[in-house]
Amino acid sequence: PPLRIAVMAGDGIGQEVVPEGLRVLDAVSRRLGIALQFDHFDFASCTYYERHGQMLPDDWKERLGGHDALFFGAVGWPKTVPDHVSLWGSLLQFRRAFDQYVNLRPARLMPGVRSPLVKRDGSPYAAGEIDMLIVRENTEGEYSSIGGRMFAGTEREIVMQETVMSRLGVDRVLRYAFELARRRPRRHLTSATKSNGIAITMPFWDERVEAIAAEFPDVTRDQFHIDILTAHFVQRPQAFDVVVASNLFGDILSDLGPACCGTIGIAPSANLNPERKFPSLFEPVHGSAPDIAGKGIANPIAQIWSAALMLDFLGRRDGHDAILRGIETVLDPASGAPRTPDLGGKATTADVGRAVAECVGSL
Amino acid sequence: PPLRIAVMAGDGIGQEVVPEGLRVLDAVSRRLGIALQFDHFDFASCTYYERHGQMLPDDWKERLGGHDALFFGAVGWPKTVPDHVSLWGSLLQFRRAFDQYVNLRPARLMPGVRSPLVKRDGSPYAAGEIDMLIVRENTEGEYSSIGGRMFAGTEREIVMQETVMSRLGVDRVLRYAFELARRRPRRHLTSATKSNGIAITMPFWDERVEAIAAEFPDVTRDQFHIDILTAHFVQRPQAFDVVVASNLFGDILSDLGPACCGTIGIAPSANLNPERKFPSLFEPVHGSAPDIAGKGIANPIAQIWSAALMLDFLGRRDGHDAILRGIETVLDPASGAPRTPDLGGKATTADVGRAVAECVGSL
Ligand SMILES: CC(C)[C@H](C(=O)O)[C@@H](O)C(=O)O
Ligand SMILES: CC(C)[C@H](C(=O)O)[C@@H](O)C(=O)O
Repeated sequence: PPLRIAVMAGDGIGQEVVPEGLRVLDAVSRRLGIALQFDHFDFASCTYYERHGQMLPDDWKERLGGHDALFFGAVGWPKTVPDHVSLWGSLLQFRRAFDQYVNLRPARLMPGVRSPLVKRDGSPYAAGEIDMLIVRENTEGEYSSIGGRMFAGTEREIVMQETVMSRLGVDRVLRYAFELARRRPRRHLTSATKSNGIAITMPFWDERVEAIAAEFPDVTRDQFHIDILTAHFVQRPQAFDVVVASNLFGDILSDLGPACCGTIGIAPSANLNPERKFPSLFEPVHGSAPDIAGKGIANPIAQIWSAALMLDFLGRRDGHDAILRGIETVLDPASGAPRTPDLGGKATTADVGRAVAECVGSL
Repeated sequence: PPLRIAVMAGDGIGQEVVPEGLRVLDAVSRRLGIALQFDHFDFASCTYYERHGQMLPDDWKERLGGHDALFFGAVGWPKTVPDHVSLWGSLLQFRRAFDQYVNLRPARLMPGVRSPLVKRDGSPYAAGEIDMLIVRENTEGEYSSIGGRMFAGTEREIVMQETVMSRLGVDRVLRYAFELARRRPRRHLTSATKSNGIAITMPFWDERVEAIAAEFPDVTRDQFHIDILTAHFVQRPQAFDVVVASNLFGDILSDLGPACCGTIGIAPSANLNPERKFPSLFEPVHGSAPDIAGKGIANPIAQIWSAALMLDFLGRRDGHDAILRGIETVLDPASGAPRTPDLGGKATTADVGRAVAECVGSL
C-alpha cells in the first residue's frame, strides 16, 4: 500500500516551495520504487481563513488523521490574519493534537554554503564542520494557552501566561534526544537551560535531564544557560552535536543554528510523533516570507530536505539519502547547478527544484 | 559631597575584576576631580551564604539604599550554592527591590577585538561597525516568582511558572528605549517579540510598542520574533541600533550581541532606576566564571566599562568618556598594551587594569 501523504502548502512561499518538494518526491519514488499517494488540502492557510472564518474545517482531525505524514509548507499572512490567530489555529494545533512532541531540526553546514562565522584564527568553517541536531520539545512549556489579561485597556493592565512542564512531557523528549545522541559518532548531548533566572520551571528541566542521563551512561553531556549558549553557537558551533531544549529555547536555537550554517532558507524540520499513533508533520523552518512571496525566487531546499526527513521517518532511509545527495550536489558550486538569490544566484524556485529532481532521478 | 558607591565584588572572578574597576575609578577621580567614596560589603556572595545561610543580611536595604550606586562584580558558586538560590537571593533581588527596571547593555565592536562574524562578501567587520544598545526589561516578565510544582516526585509531576507583564512595567522600559534611540544618530529601534507563538503576553508587548511608538514619530522602528532576530544578529548585526526586549529575550540578546562583537569578556551592563529613587547597579555581563576563577587571568574590561556607565549615569559623562578612551587605547594592538588570554594575550587581570588606569591618568 502506498504511503499516504497529506499535502498543505499554506501561505506565501509555501505555495511555491511545496510543489518543488513534491517534484523531488516524485523523482525519488520512481527511482527507488517508493509508492506515495498525495492528498491535497487547501486549509491551514489564511486564504482558507478569509473564506471560512477559521483556519481549519471542523473535521480536520478525521481528514488528516488517517495519513502517514503531513507535508506542510508555511502558514501566516499577517496582512489579513494576525500571526497568533493563524498559527494557533493550524500549525500549533497539529503539533499538539497529533502529539508531535519532538521537533527535530538539523543545522549542518552544507557544501557551497558560506557560514557567516569564522574560526578563532579567521579561517572559514568547512562543509560538515558544523553539524548539529536540535531537538525541541514541541507540545508544552512556554507555548501555553493558559493565561489572560486583567484591567484591560487601563493603566493597571496586567497580562499573565503560564509556562507548563510535565514530567511526562519533558522525559519523553529527553529520552528521544539521548537515543539520538547515542546513535551519532560523537554521542554528545547539550541541554539548554536557564535555571539561574527562570527559577521554577527550569530547575525542574535540569533535574529531569539528570535523571534521564542516568539511563544513558554512554552519552557525554553538558548544559548551558540559553543566554551563553547562543554565544557559544557563534563562537564554537563545531562543539555541538545533539542539543535538547524546551519549546521556546528550541525555537530560538533552531533559527540561530541554521543561521550559523549560512541560511535559514535551507533548514528543514520534522514534527514527530515517534510512536506513529498520529501523523507527523514535515515543514521548512522558514515561514511564509510575505516579502518575497509571489516572485518565484524562494529557495525550495528546506522543503525538499523536509521531504527527505519524512521518508526517513517513514522507514525509507534510502529515499532520505538519495534526496540529501541530490541537495548536496546541487548546492556544490562545482555542479554549476542553479542557485536562488539568497545563495547568490539568479535561479527561480522551480529551476532549483528541477535540478534536485534530476539529480535524484539519475543517481 | 562625594558620590557614595557601595562595592560588592561577590564570587569567583568578581573578586579579581572589581579591584581593577576601582583602580581605574581612582585614576579617573584624581584626573578629573570626581569625588568618590567607596563602601565595601562582603554580602551578595556565596562565601557570605556559607557563613550566614542567606545571601544578604536582613537590613541590606538600609545598608545599600543610601548609596548613589552599587558597583557589583559577579555572583554564583554552584559548587556550594545552587545558582537559582544565589541569584534570586541577591542580584535579582536588587533589580526588583531597587526597581532597576532598565538593564542597559551596549554591544559594540571595539578596536583590536575580532568579531567571529564576517560580512556577506567574507570581509571582516571594522571597529564600530557593530554598535547596538540592548535595553532589557529588568523587573518582571518571564523572571517571575509565581508558580510551583504539583504531584512532586511522581509520574504526574507538573511545574508551572507565570510570566507577568504589566502596562506600567512595559511602557516605562519602552519609553526609555525610544528616548535613547531618539538621541542616537540612527534613531532606530528594534523590538524583540514572539507574538506568533507566545500568544498571550507577547501580543500585549507588541500593542504597547505600537502605542508608545506614537509618541516618537522621529524614531524608525521594526520588530522581529526572537527566533529570527537571533539569526539577524549573526547575519546583519550592523542593522541594529537600539534593541528593546523583555527580561528573558533581553537576557539572551545581551549575551549574543557581545558574542557577535568578539567576546562576552568585555561587555558591561547598567541596571538602572532612571528616576534615581533607588541606587542603580553596574556589573559586567559575564558571571563569576568558576572555571577560570583564582587564576588572575580574567579580563577586567567589562568591569571597568561598567564603571564608565556608572559615572555617565551619575552625571559625569567626562569620566565615562575618559575611561572609554582608556579602554579603546589598551584594546588597540598598536598600543602594545597587555591583553588577557581571552583576547589572545598572556597578561594578568591586574596588568590590564593598570594599563587602563595609566591611560586614564595621562589623558
Ligand atoms: C545570572 C542570571 C540570573 C542573570 C540573568 O539571567 O539576568 C545573568 O544572566 C544576567 O544577564 O545578568
Ligand atoms: C510560526 C511560529 C509559531 C513557529 C514556532 O514558534 O514554533 C515557528 O517559529 C517555528 O519554529 O516553527
